[in-house]
Amino acid sequence: MADSPLESIYRRYLEALNERRLDDLVDYVHDTVVYNARALTRRGYSDLIAADIQAIPDLRYVVDLLVVRADLVACRLKFDCTPRHPFSGLRPTGRAVSFAEHVFYRFHDARIAEVWSLVDKPAIEAPLSS
Amino acid sequence: MADSPLESIYRRYLEALNERRLDDLVDYVHDTVVYNARALTRRGYSDLIAADIQAIPDLRYVVDLLVVRADLVACRLKFDCTPRHPFSGLRPTGRAVSFAEHVFYRFHDARIAEVWSLVDKPAIEAPLSS
Repeated sequence: MADSPLESIYRRYLEALNERRLDDLVDYVHDTVVYNARALTRRGYSDLIAADIQAIPDLRYVVDLLVVRADLVACRLKFDCTPRHPFSGLRPTGRAVSFAEHVFYRFHDARIAEVWSLVDKPAIEAPLSS
Repeated sequence: MADSPLESIYRRYLEALNERRLDDLVDYVHDTVVYNARALTRRGYSDLIAADIQAIPDLRYVVDLLVVRADLVACRLKFDCTPRHPFSGLRPTGRAVSFAEHVFYRFHDARIAEVWSLVDKPAIEAPLSS
């Protein structure tokens, strides 16, 4: 199935994150965005991502499953990385971890307006070697 | 947008769960299903759901967000309930809780073949009154 326009936009958004082009978020995120029921400015949203990248320098957003229809995007993201600083309330062990995020986005006018995210915290706490 | 056939099937699957018709899972779930990377028989999958219902007698699966395309279903489910027995490794407080599940399903031949589920455990631990 060919990518929908929204799927292409979403994939470019992830590319921007992976290439650390956070200034480009203006192209993908509204001036205000509701993130897990909390209203944020785009700058506040960008700061959340910047904090994740600071804690996990090798963080890469990799699509495992992607479902797009109408104005909604649902994505299972897989992360294989080594946290270096406390992340999402968890302390790094210095070892590689593998975890997933299941995230829904509602787009308005081709930019993200609302995000609902759940992260697999138990997987972050359990190093890959366990 | 009209419901897709798969969306209708999925909504009937949730109705079966909400009406406790677990014998009907034969219509919605393959003989074997991979649940969070673990292969289960349909009976094993049904037993997981039966255990949740036993722990939370008023458990109702309510769709908050639903995205369906091709053979994939992504759903954000919302639960408002009162756990009565230990659930997902968490002890009940006797108080109502509100939490979400973000779940992806891959269907084969109109029945569930694979499931990836994340549950918002911190929300379960925090009672509604907090």
